[in-house]
Order: sequence, then C-alpha cells, then structure tokens
Amino acid sequence: MIVQGKNVVRELLSSENTINKMFVQNNLTDKVSNELISLAKQKGVKIDFVPKAVLDKKASHHQGFVCETTDFKYAQIEDILNHDALGKRFLVILDGIEDPHNLGAIIRTCECAGVSGIVIPEWRACQVNDTVIKTSAGATTNVLVARTNNLNNLIRDLKEQNFWVYALELGGKNIYDVDLKGDIAIVVGSEGFGVSKLVKQNCDDVISLKQNGKINSLNASVAAGIAIYEAIRQRC
Amino acid sequence: MIVQGKNVVRELLSSENTINKMFVQNNLTDKVSNELISLAKQKGVKIDFVPKAVLDKKASHHQGFVCETTDFKYAQIEDILNHDALGKRFLVILDGIEDPHNLGAIIRTCECAGVSGIVIPEWRACQVNDTVIKTSAGATTNVLVARTNNLNNLIRDLKEQNFWVYALELGGKNIYDVDLKGDIAIVVGSEGFGVSKLVKQNCDDVISLKQNGKINSLNASVAAGIAIYEAIRQRC
Repeated sequence: MIVQGKNVVRELLSSENTINKMFVQNNLTDKVSNELISLAKQKGVKIDFVPKAVLDKKASHHQGFVCETTDFKYAQIEDILNHDALGKRFLVILDGIEDPHNLGAIIRTCECAGVSGIVIPEWRACQVNDTVIKTSAGATTNVLVARTNNLNNLIRDLKEQNFWVYALELGGKNIYDVDLKGDIAIVVGSEGFGVSKLVKQNCDDVISLKQNGKINSLNASVAAGIAIYEAIRQRC
Repeated sequence: MIVQGKNVVRELLSSENTINKMFVQNNLTDKVSNELISLAKQKGVKIDFVPKAVLDKKASHHQGFVCETTDFKYAQIEDILNHDALGKRFLVILDGIEDPHNLGAIIRTCECAGVSGIVIPEWRACQVNDTVIKTSAGATTNVLVARTNNLNNLIRDLKEQNFWVYALELGGKNIYDVDLKGDIAIVVGSEGFGVSKLVKQNCDDVISLKQNGKINSLNASVAAGIAIYEAIRQRC
C-alpha cells in the first residue's frame, strides 16, 4: 500500500506499522523534511532519494514523501472490546459507508474523540485503502479498525455483553435525551440508504440529531462526528 | 451554472431560484423522474428531452437531470442578521475554507441545524460553485450565504451589535463550558491554517473541542458540525 504526504508519513513513522521502503524527493531542505528523514533513519527505514518525477508517478499529493507499507492491519474485535474510552467501552459500527473520504473523516473523528474502535463490514462497504489513510490524516495508525462478516451477529454479541447499541437515524429519540455514558455502540448507516432494516431492528434503540431545516440530511461523516462527540461530552 | 442530480434538482425546483433551462434524459420512466418532470412543468420551466450522451457532456453525475441556472445568488449580511435561529441569531463565519466538499458539507449542516446564515470571504476561499451545490445536497437553496471583503470589519460590527464571536480552534475554552445561547457567531478556520491570527485576536474568545487522541485534528466540516450542533443543543 502507498502512503503519501508529510503529515501522514509522520504518523506512520510514529506508529508500529511496517514501512517496506520510503521514497523522498532528492532536493528537499526544509525543516519538516529534514525531521522526517531523521526520524526514518532512526527507525532504520530504507530510504531512496529520487527526482520529483519518480514520486509523481507513484502518488498525486506526495509533498516529497511516499512510503510503501504492508497492507492495512485490521484489529480483532476482541482488541477493541478490551479498550476503554473514558471509563467505558465505545464502539462505532459503520453499516456500509462507501465513500473513502467519509470513512477517512470518520476514522479521524474517532481518533480525536478517543473511541475504543471502529467495526466495518467485510463487503459492500469501503475498506481501509490509500485514499482512506490519506483522508484520515494518519489517524488509521492510532485507532483500532476491525472487520466483521456479520453485523447482526456482532450486535447480538454486544448486547449479550450488556452494551447498549444505537442506530443513528432520523425518526428516533433525540440524542440529547439518551444516556450514552455506559458501554455503547453507535451504528452509522450508509450515505444513500442509512442503517439497514435488519440491523436497525437488532439495535436497542434509534437515536437522532435535531433537524431544523428542510433538507434534513447531514453528510454521513458530519452526522457521525456530532453523535460521537455527544457521547464524549456526556462522558467528560 | 450547472446543477445536476435528482435530489439537487428537486431542491432547486422547490426553491425560488431561476432555472434557465432543464435537460432531461429522454427515456426515463421511473416514479422520481416523472415527479420531477411534473414539478418542472408546473413551474413553467423550459424542458429539453435529450439523449444520455448529451447530458454526459454537460455533467458527470446527472442521473438524467441537468439544470442551467443563473449564478448562485448570495444573500446580504443584513438578511442574515434579520433571521433568528431558535430565538437568537447564530452566524457561521468561514475564514478561508478551500475545499468545495467541505464548504458543501458545512452548508448542509447549517441548513439542517437552522442557523441564521453563513458568511464567507470574497477571496482566498472557495466560493459557492457547482461542486459545492452538489455536495450540499441542495441545501444552498435553503440557507443564506453572504460574502464579505473584510472579515475583521464584520466581526467588529457584530460585536458592536452585542454578538459573542468565537473562533473554533485548538487551545481555547472547552466548548461545553461556554454559553452559546445568545446572539453568536462561530468562526471556522481553513483546512490547513485554522483561523487566521488577526481574526482570532478580534474574536471575543476561542472555543475548542475535546481531543483525546494523538492526531488532534478533525476534518474542518466535521469540527464545524460538532460546534454548530453544540450550540443547537444548548438552545433547544
């Protein structure tokens, strides 16, 4: 997998992910570039200094830095369940997010908020690819992302472990009236279709954001951000 | 200006914006298409039924519907100041948002939240263009967007009218500890540089979102969404 751009490469260098090779533009002298090169040398990363044209062929927004890494390492759901978020566990489950920019932005929000982790479906949904990593501003290296082949089974398992599982959708309880301080999971639906019918039925409840306009449809990553931070507000 | 896609065209048809001409793919028989065609006929919009290839040349995600409209009509700042948002006025000021997808998502959030309106700078910032309108899911037809050639003068004027003006940035007061129920303006900074130094100095205070991770940088439209909805939560 290709990782590009100074900020994302810095996050990658600070993480435990394996970098197979780093390509650096051969005429960079600025402070940030020198810092990144030192960091890579400290970590023993193999660096190739190459002309800009070589990087342009590998990536479109590289800012002089491209890394080749092993494919994204998904976490196990058990790892996420062992990870507290401000005292209790807090999972974000994505039911079919398709746009890599939305997935990247949601992972970025989850990292800033400090959730336990994210679970995505193994198919019919965007996976963690180069665009997602770039959009997440490197957050993919600091937040646990796991996959499941059956969202409904996952939700049933969580409920057996006394989680409260909420679907984020129109027409439910006002999110500000719901106690989000315990072990919870929030299910965010896809851009076009929201949370799927069966998944919604399996959830304990539906929570909604107040809509005062005519359109009443927030961008999926914005809606997820507002809901995630409402839970964080209640926990702090 | 070109407006494309069924949802956006529906919003446009429901608004008071002028449609110069509507191009519709000539073999559509589905329910939604028929509904949109009826709506356009009721409004006296001139419709040209054309082959798909003609639409493909005009737009990339048309779903069979493309409208030519007059350029986006910006509101006056006075219009926004005359528009209450849940009892008091609530302005969102964007200090240099450059990505049309972020601007579109923020306009969409503002419409759902029901803010008084949005002010953007006349230069060094994304203007309301075709991509913004598409990303906003049609929200541009329902929310007031004005422009200013001097953000600092605007902020001074607002403060003289007893507005509280807040810069949304790292390192300020926890947003959850700040009273956002009165006449307020929230200034959202650019993707790369945040709120500019002079603008921040002119604001009454800096408000921040809690950051529990290592990256501590939310996507601009997600951060704006969380802050806007915190104000809405307090007002409801």
